[in-house]
Amino acid sequence: MTIASIYDTIQKPTLVLNPNRAKANIEKMAAKAARNGVRFRPHFKTHQSAAIGEWFRAAGVQAITVSSVDMALYFARHGWQDITIAFSVNIRQIEASNALAGQVSLNLLVESPETVQFLAEHLTHPVSLWLKVDAGYGRTGLNWADVAGLTAVAHEIAQSDRLTLRGLLTHAGDTYQARGQAAVEAVHRETVSRLAAARHALHQAGFGPLELSVGDTPASSMVENLGDVDEIRPGNFVFYDAMQWQIGACREDEIAVATACPVIAKHSSQNKLVLYGGAVHLSKEFMVDSQGQRIFGYAALPTADGWGPRLPGCYLTGVSQEHGLLHANAETIRRVNIGDLLLVLPVHSCLTVNLLREYRTLDGDIINIEE
Amino acid sequence: MTIASIYDTIQKPTLVLNPNRAKANIEKMAAKAARNGVRFRPHFKTHQSAAIGEWFRAAGVQAITVSSVDMALYFARHGWQDITIAFSVNIRQIEASNALAGQVSLNLLVESPETVQFLAEHLTHPVSLWLKVDAGYGRTGLNWADVAGLTAVAHEIAQSDRLTLRGLLTHAGDTYQARGQAAVEAVHRETVSRLAAARHALHQAGFGPLELSVGDTPASSMVENLGDVDEIRPGNFVFYDAMQWQIGACREDEIAVATACPVIAKHSSQNKLVLYGGAVHLSKEFMVDSQGQRIFGYAALPTADGWGPRLPGCYLTGVSQEHGLLHANAETIRRVNIGDLLLVLPVHSCLTVNLLREYRTLDGDIINIEE
Repeated sequence: MTIASIYDTIQKPTLVLNPNRAKANIEKMAAKAARNGVRFRPHFKTHQSAAIGEWFRAAGVQAITVSSVDMALYFARHGWQDITIAFSVNIRQIEASNALAGQVSLNLLVESPETVQFLAEHLTHPVSLWLKVDAGYGRTGLNWADVAGLTAVAHEIAQSDRLTLRGLLTHAGDTYQARGQAAVEAVHRETVSRLAAARHALHQAGFGPLELSVGDTPASSMVENLGDVDEIRPGNFVFYDAMQWQIGACREDEIAVATACPVIAKHSSQNKLVLYGGAVHLSKEFMVDSQGQRIFGYAALPTADGWGPRLPGCYLTGVSQEHGLLHANAETIRRVNIGDLLLVLPVHSCLTVNLLREYRTLDGDIINIEE
Repeated sequence: MTIASIYDTIQKPTLVLNPNRAKANIEKMAAKAARNGVRFRPHFKTHQSAAIGEWFRAAGVQAITVSSVDMALYFARHGWQDITIAFSVNIRQIEASNALAGQVSLNLLVESPETVQFLAEHLTHPVSLWLKVDAGYGRTGLNWADVAGLTAVAHEIAQSDRLTLRGLLTHAGDTYQARGQAAVEAVHRETVSRLAAARHALHQAGFGPLELSVGDTPASSMVENLGDVDEIRPGNFVFYDAMQWQIGACREDEIAVATACPVIAKHSSQNKLVLYGGAVHLSKEFMVDSQGQRIFGYAALPTADGWGPRLPGCYLTGVSQEHGLLHANAETIRRVNIGDLLLVLPVHSCLTVNLLREYRTLDGDIINIEE
């Protein structure tokens, strides 16, 4: 089998990117948003790269989501003019937030009257606010059924000329626990229905009109009719990963990144290959398979056009700081030698990208992330 | 209570370092090694910083351990002349290894005849080799009882003029599963006894004299008489962390790093504070307490001299990419406001340092890590 020449030069754990797959994932999601008539505001925390951001711009994207003030400043420097920081306001970063609000159309998330009061006193430019709603995930945000809480924050926003209440926003992270079409669809329907109920209560209390923003990767990928929402904010879909594949959100051949890891040891009697590739490359994220086994990644062989299918019966059973332990079947152990590269399909591409901070494309180009 | 002025300027998750604690940890371990008459070859992967390396030099350290070729090159540039890369040789990095071997006294780990053959053919300078031994941990290395395997590798080394077999090396990572003095001591005794048996077999086969190298942080911290070994290589002890405290390897007031995290939300009815501080700052490493609860970190309040004791009943129950969820008792929720900082004692300081890549000392200095 021919093997792509980029692999000749890879010496240590390296994040390999298949640009065609990533671009196809972007196109497909943009088309889904268009069919649904919703704004596509992709989350850029997954790729963190201005160069990859341009692939989204080519697909018609104008509005983006980020997860930190620093990331917003980075993408503002690269020409993005409509940015949502999808993380409840950290009031200690008010100076940087003011700098941002002076440059771009800025959307911030709030979930308490105290934070709104602080913004009203300290913001020097107008911003749009979204109520961060907990629609069942249980991480953070105002509970969707807490009408008193929602209206108290909305009321506080209405006191300030600089603040505009734009809508309700949630991250339905509970789809990451769902498996299969019906389960993800059920979480999505419930999420949208709860957001709509919260919006209705706010309308009744005199606040509105208000938009709804949703859009985790599983629901955005798997639900055809997204329902009565105004925008979606998926991020992970640009690369997908082993967890999304397990959920059912992507096909295996839509996964666009893998970490090339040198094999440093073979322990045939233990059905084990040891990889140079550990927690500082892949993260400690794991998923649990149907047998209850923790899986820290799958392995594939390098090929002329990237990497082959997931090797059957091969998965990472653990990672320490630099080591990855690959449970491998006998055929793989026979075929693979010390010094060969294996491609590890990440469990969670966002965390792997954040650790490796540089992409090597199949053409040999290097793409850096946010600096 | 007075609060150190560095906290006034901290706006986002920041790694705070108490230099006095780190220096005391170094002195204490150096004294332990001296009492035992063993070489102290600390693992620099924990701190990854040339500036902190100087604190070790001040304590008399001349030989160091690192976990990658890149880290070896970095510390070689900063004047370290005797370096062990405690990770089985990755033959794809032979060029960089040759560059290193030309500059410093280099120790490499091997666990297969194939890798030794490769080194014999491609190394351009002499190096010392250590047999990487699995003394029970089960990650990688030649099994301590596999006399045929050990002698095969030793025999291969003896064929080359450039290669010198220096000894047997193990990482007894199984002490991380142990809790308490007796358990850690038992693992250490068994490890040393197995290494000694492997050395005896090699001596019988005509190889030697050979040194023994051990020294995970729990055993190096907790075992007073380290036994018949020649060097120890602990790393984590310079900062310690919540896991070492749980094992019993340190007192809480020996933990030298904590991550300052802004509070972004309070959910009193759920006994929850939400922190800006997640998987990209703290890592996804967790430990399990005696009730089976997963703990991603403990919280403390900022004080004039760093941070106070661990807040009772307060621990991180989960992290997503940027969020940390802190289960907090009623008193803490009453005392802490949105915008305040909490200090998170990391579960695993090596991974937190690797993610945050910069220290803020209590004096306000900034110390960078390897670039």
